Amino acid sequence: MKSKKFILPESQMPTAWYNLVADIPHQPRPYLNPDTHSPITESDLRLILADELARQELSTERFIEIPDEVQEIYRIWRPVPLVRAIGLEKALDTPAKIFFKNEGVSPVGSHKPNSAVPQAYYNHKQGIRRLTTETGAGQWGSALSFAGNHFGLDVEVFMVRVSYDQKPYRRLMMNTWGATCHSSPTTLTQSGRTARMTDPHTTGSLGLAISEAVERALEDPEGTRYCLGSVMNHVLLHQTITGEEAILQMQMADAEPDVVIGCIGGGSNFGGIAFPFLRQNFCEGKQIRVVAVEPESCPKLTRGTFQYDIGDYSGYTPLIPMYTLGHEFQPSAIHAGGLRYHGAGAIISQLLHDGHIEATAIPQTETMQAGVLFARTEGIIPAPESTHAIAAAIREALRAKIEGRNTTILFNLSGHGTIDLFAYEQYLGGHLQDYIPSDEEIARTVQRLEQII
Amino acid sequence: MKSKKFILPESQMPTAWYNLVADIPHQPRPYLNPDTHSPITESDLRLILADELARQELSTERFIEIPDEVQEIYRIWRPVPLVRAIGLEKALDTPAKIFFKNEGVSPVGSHKPNSAVPQAYYNHKQGIRRLTTETGAGQWGSALSFAGNHFGLDVEVFMVRVSYDQKPYRRLMMNTWGATCHSSPTTLTQSGRTARMTDPHTTGSLGLAISEAVERALEDPEGTRYCLGSVMNHVLLHQTITGEEAILQMQMADAEPDVVIGCIGGGSNFGGIAFPFLRQNFCEGKQIRVVAVEPESCPKLTRGTFQYDIGDYSGYTPLIPMYTLGHEFQPSAIHAGGLRYHGAGAIISQLLHDGHIEATAIPQTETMQAGVLFARTEGIIPAPESTHAIAAAIREALRAKIEGRNTTILFNLSGHGTIDLFAYEQYLGGHLQDYIPSDEEIARTVQRLEQII
Repeated sequence: MKSKKFILPESQMPTAWYNLVADIPHQPRPYLNPDTHSPITESDLRLILADELARQELSTERFIEIPDEVQEIYRIWRPVPLVRAIGLEKALDTPAKIFFKNEGVSPVGSHKPNSAVPQAYYNHKQGIRRLTTETGAGQWGSALSFAGNHFGLDVEVFMVRVSYDQKPYRRLMMNTWGATCHSSPTTLTQSGRTARMTDPHTTGSLGLAISEAVERALEDPEGTRYCLGSVMNHVLLHQTITGEEAILQMQMADAEPDVVIGCIGGGSNFGGIAFPFLRQNFCEGKQIRVVAVEPESCPKLTRGTFQYDIGDYSGYTPLIPMYTLGHEFQPSAIHAGGLRYHGAGAIISQLLHDGHIEATAIPQTETMQAGVLFARTEGIIPAPESTHAIAAAIREALRAKIEGRNTTILFNLSGHGTIDLFAYEQYLGGHLQDYIPSDEEIARTVQRLEQII
Repeated sequence: MKSKKFILPESQMPTAWYNLVADIPHQPRPYLNPDTHSPITESDLRLILADELARQELSTERFIEIPDEVQEIYRIWRPVPLVRAIGLEKALDTPAKIFFKNEGVSPVGSHKPNSAVPQAYYNHKQGIRRLTTETGAGQWGSALSFAGNHFGLDVEVFMVRVSYDQKPYRRLMMNTWGATCHSSPTTLTQSGRTARMTDPHTTGSLGLAISEAVERALEDPEGTRYCLGSVMNHVLLHQTITGEEAILQMQMADAEPDVVIGCIGGGSNFGGIAFPFLRQNFCEGKQIRVVAVEPESCPKLTRGTFQYDIGDYSGYTPLIPMYTLGHEFQPSAIHAGGLRYHGAGAIISQLLHDGHIEATAIPQTETMQAGVLFARTEGIIPAPESTHAIAAAIREALRAKIEGRNTTILFNLSGHGTIDLFAYEQYLGGHLQDYIPSDEEIARTVQRLEQII
């Protein structure tokens, strides 16, 4: 009987992250200071990030070694299995081979601790005592709580109010790991107070929660730093452990992917699986297709504009060159909370612009249908975010069937969905609807962006 | 750096379950028909169970082969990691080595699918189309939904009302895998209707839910059978895959347990880890201590009586020779819902009676304290049930420290707790209380039992 899971021994866990900046054909344009429009420097970044993270953000080294202390915590759940989705293949009656990397086995239930752990480590090493961050769906906030706890750091999470109210379990996970979790907007920050005054009934937004977390960190330059869960280069760097493991595991499975698929919010999950395979394209002449999957309701890659935008609501982050819908864009309340973000990271945006990756947008009902099929054939209930990658993999597998091709598909299962089951209830109850923003709606927020280049 | 996880390759996954009945020094007394008091036969059991499960229930074969179809589904998550709890060891500053088997990595989040999968398989093979079962905390109901779905069976779960109302996520998992979940007591059965008439505000009980599920199965002898998640021999048999894996993995870790620990409700988790190590005691002359851990609020092993009792409320199950508090005992509403059961399986009860295993009872606050320490040192948030095993392991490790012994401890982490986080909220908020039933309270329900032997 063929193996279903391909498990890398701990002794073969990759010991370095991969920095795609070393091999990308065209470098992304630099981050800019939102006030002066001059390129951001490492010392600018140090105001909000730990020194080593600021260094990594601008680094061009090809590989960055994973510290032993980080490897030790990774070993709680890593290496994570590569799985051959035999049940799904059978249900689709496809000649395609489907593999997925199961990042849902982490204690947090997603890929997020891959970056949370090194971020906490470098801050701790620098003598920082407190971390602040935002969280939307709650995955990142849980991950940083888990990671901060390991290094004895206080962690303060600003959780978007709508999620805070709807997802008590995520908040309780953070509490269990010793973190504090606020419903954002709070009265603790200027950004929060302003938002509450403007609209007392606001349900909050990710951009606003970022603003609150950054503002809070800036108040205490000695002891506090901010941490971000996606978008920035150093976060994507840490996530490449996934793709590096996957390369070794595909060899164990004696297979090579024709197409690599990841869902995309800011890009941490997508970059994690994609970048190491893109290295094979850039350096070894391979021609692996790499596909980013976004929700049709938040289509920054397929319908956004490629220009500078800020990462938060109030403008505490640098200007980032990105595919964006505008930071004031209000995505509809789809269940994949981790994908409701207006922009994509700079490297990913550059890759798409230059034609090195593809992007596709899928409606919510199709993704949840894919999620239920996956749950019933592979046993694992996927996170609503991950169902986007599954839906795209299913499209590829069905195309392979029509065309009679033996395609090999690899996707990243970013997390499990057992703390997001209301999405399934709504889908199974027939209450889910698709939402496609109109051209006017997108133009409205895009047109408000500064035209810098 | 030393390995933290010991991962068995899929190719080395055990291919047979172990039946302790073949090696136990004194056989348990037979199950009895509750009406006639004559020993139950295989054909009696076939009225409610699939034929092969009825056969396994009374089997004395040492090893029973795991069918290929079951192994294939086991491979979705098995073999499960054996983990060295280095973080916990450090926090306790103990010379003891602590290992645990992580059954929380299954798609359901617990050990329960180890038996749900073969139960669904044998029923399917026999041409049964529908399964009925009960669930308390929801783990077993989820597991049977997951398993039944794989074989195209309809699954109907009677979930104790208090859990149904408090744990919507569990119900939603069952729905996602295509099962129907009722709040028990229902109006679908005589047992349910009687209970609702007697007390319209009843919050239900596990014994009552079992009665409903059995009654429902008996209505359709052609197409429906009942499945049980614990207590009975065939269920514990299926769970031995855990202990069999653990034996191989302890060899990989170059270690031998001095003590093996499992929490106990009906005995499925405890038997799963304990029985293969007891074989080593009985057949190879080893002297491994084996400890069953129960909640102080439901102390059947430490304060119950050893005699015949029924497994449900209405008397649809055989009379089972067990340590019991009486089937009318109402355990307090502790968070470890899976341990709120009045009796222990026949084999386990016989083992305790004959001094082959030990039993200990631990109060709820101590177990939750242990759970939080585990979450903060090992990263994994344990199920409230599993925190009992952790608390006992901590007691052993601290004793080893005082006595300066290099004890090796192995416990079974029956599941993760991310769907039971309200227990942690209550504990962290200081709202948890311990409850110790009085001698009178226990005597009241024990005295109502028939004196058969």
